[in-house]
Amino acid sequence: IQSKLPSVGTTIFTTMSQLAAQTGAINLSQGFPDFDGPEALREAVARHVMAGHNQYAPMTGLPALREQVAAKVAALYGRVVSAEHEVTITPGATEALFCAIQALVRTGDEVIVFDPSYDSYAPAVELAGGRCIHLQLKRPDFSIDWQALAEAIGPRTRLIVLNTPHNPSGALIARADLDQLAGLIRGRDIYLLSDEVYEHLVFDGREHASVLRHEELYQRALVVSSFGKTYHVTGWKTGYVIAPPALSAELRKVHQYVSFCGVTPLQWALADFMAAYPQHIAELPDFYQAKRDLFCDLLAASRFTFTRSPGTYFQVADYSAIRPDLNDVQMAEWLAREHGVATIPVSVFYQEAPADLRLVRFCFAKREETLRQAAQRLCAI
Amino acid sequence: IQSKLPSVGTTIFTTMSQLAAQTGAINLSQGFPDFDGPEALREAVARHVMAGHNQYAPMTGLPALREQVAAKVAALYGRVVSAEHEVTITPGATEALFCAIQALVRTGDEVIVFDPSYDSYAPAVELAGGRCIHLQLKRPDFSIDWQALAEAIGPRTRLIVLNTPHNPSGALIARADLDQLAGLIRGRDIYLLSDEVYEHLVFDGREHASVLRHEELYQRALVVSSFGKTYHVTGWKTGYVIAPPALSAELRKVHQYVSFCGVTPLQWALADFMAAYPQHIAELPDFYQAKRDLFCDLLAASRFTFTRSPGTYFQVADYSAIRPDLNDVQMAEWLAREHGVATIPVSVFYQEAPADLRLVRFCFAKREETLRQAAQRLCAI
Ligand SMILES: CSCCC(=O)C(=O)O
Ligand SMILES: CSCCC(=O)C(=O)O
Repeated sequence: IQSKLPSVGTTIFTTMSQLAAQTGAINLSQGFPDFDGPEALREAVARHVMAGHNQYAPMTGLPALREQVAAKVAALYGRVVSAEHEVTITPGATEALFCAIQALVRTGDEVIVFDPSYDSYAPAVELAGGRCIHLQLKRPDFSIDWQALAEAIGPRTRLIVLNTPHNPSGALIARADLDQLAGLIRGRDIYLLSDEVYEHLVFDGREHASVLRHEELYQRALVVSSFGKTYHVTGWKTGYVIAPPALSAELRKVHQYVSFCGVTPLQWALADFMAAYPQHIAELPDFYQAKRDLFCDLLAASRFTFTRSPGTYFQVADYSAIRPDLNDVQMAEWLAREHGVATIPVSVFYQEAPADLRLVRFCFAKREETLRQAAQRLCAI
Repeated sequence: IQSKLPSVGTTIFTTMSQLAAQTGAINLSQGFPDFDGPEALREAVARHVMAGHNQYAPMTGLPALREQVAAKVAALYGRVVSAEHEVTITPGATEALFCAIQALVRTGDEVIVFDPSYDSYAPAVELAGGRCIHLQLKRPDFSIDWQALAEAIGPRTRLIVLNTPHNPSGALIARADLDQLAGLIRGRDIYLLSDEVYEHLVFDGREHASVLRHEELYQRALVVSSFGKTYHVTGWKTGYVIAPPALSAELRKVHQYVSFCGVTPLQWALADFMAAYPQHIAELPDFYQAKRDLFCDLLAASRFTFTRSPGTYFQVADYSAIRPDLNDVQMAEWLAREHGVATIPVSVFYQEAPADLRLVRFCFAKREETLRQAAQRLCAI
């Protein structure tokens, strides 16, 4: 059999989580918490499963959950969206990203992604018959190179994939960046896919410059987020897309044949919890900032160098002072096997990684004890 | 925005379930039970959600659940499959079908489907850049026209989609059919996608001729099934694919970027339940046959004509004696609005329905009381 994705192996997340399991390393690789979602949320699932909410959800998602999302968007970003026509619940943000790309990209279309980029974008574009144009974010701050972007946009450009807060770097886009972007695509047949799954994980009083705040960009955007990330339940695989009605309609056409709908009792439980505990979202930045600060304070005593992550639950760190002889894949392997900490090498987020890249990514969505133990091992190197 | 799926509207299942909700019609349209999954299974979900099984599952599925599936396949179909390399858990059978098609079909490839066919096959093929060749099953028994199939197979044929037990007709493929099929594709670069989501719903002592029983076909097949259908929990969106290692590897490459994984606590619960209650599957044929017989016995007093469904939880019936002037879409609308029973018009499963088709599909996965009430209304027409 000839592969449709010949260059694709197993995702790094699977590989590293497996290596952690094998070696007993502390797993700071794949992005998931080692603590649980809120008890009231989990109890709500138990309740709905027992109460008989176990058959197909509506294809677009449970109305009560779509309403909650619309209410949140209005409260946080000042945008009034229609729960019926602009919010779609999906089985995970990954499915949302995939469907959005399938709905917009045709054979020969070009899609601009900023490297380092999440590893599902490019294969999704490839399967849609499109071509990925990989632009590198500037280092060390992982900001957009506007000159390069302006030059990359051409008649075949169909879609630009944004990701803020940015995985793996934690970098944030600013509102002024959105204006720049709007200027570049104005009057062109170009759409925007905005991956905002870490929308609530923004630190030091900074603002999340959601595309939802930007009227002009929103009109041609699909904005993706994740209940799994926000409610500490990545294994629930429930996400959503917000897009203007015409774009939502196209997204839904694809979604209805990719998966049809998400899981019913989880949607009921999330709707209940969002209504009862709106403060969960408000408390998230401090909750994760404390973890970032704990981890970074401890890591300051190591030979890793870094600037604190402005967002996400990831911290990238440079290991040049430790093993400059190793590339980051070798470094991640060495860290897991020899020092008992599993990480993600940042080069896997690049189509072509810079030769001098010496970065690994730590996930700090972990209990204090886990972070202390990991930091202790990292400081001993 | 130019649509990638210009001919696609909202699925008939959404449309008819909405019409049922609006009109208060008894909903025998979309295929889901109006009773609940086993209590022990639902309790297992509650347990695992509370016990903290809420983060990402492995991309290929929870090992314990893959083992249970492998054990079932060995027991029922006499095939020993590797839980590690041949079983993949997916967020629903629809996702499984979509990923299988994406993994195998390239631009210009032809895919043979037998109409009436489930409505997700053709859009999935279209999105993969393939071309669907629609062959009609022979009426009234919905059997394969071997002559037509032999003529349709050509150098561009890449995939044949089988569905047994067959939705909407309930027809079963026989083992001899599998031999015929094997003969037709032998020596060619053609794969088989076998949609067997109703594998356990086979009546009157008949046998489910799973492709898993057929050594030669299995070597080039992906076989899809559904926990939702088997355990009366369609809203859990959990399914699986069984395929030889090389095909499973290609399927997984796509699946890992379409959705990454299925829902963790549901997989734990299903694994527990399969281990503790193997009799559930053995009891299913009688359980649903009793429903079919109840419904058909009652419907015999109506002016609908039909032969009893050999499998699935659907019964098709001809309404020529009632309203020959209406096509089936009009008939379904009339039945819902004027007589309070929502059904599925069979023509929507055809690319080009025969002009004389006068069939609607009833879902009999309903409580006795629901079936009695619906039959009463249908007999009064
Ligand atoms: C779907 S596994 C990847 C989780 C994640 O978002 C990450 O680790 O970057
Ligand atoms: C995903 S909704 C369709 C359910 C079903 O299998 C059917 O009604 O045929």
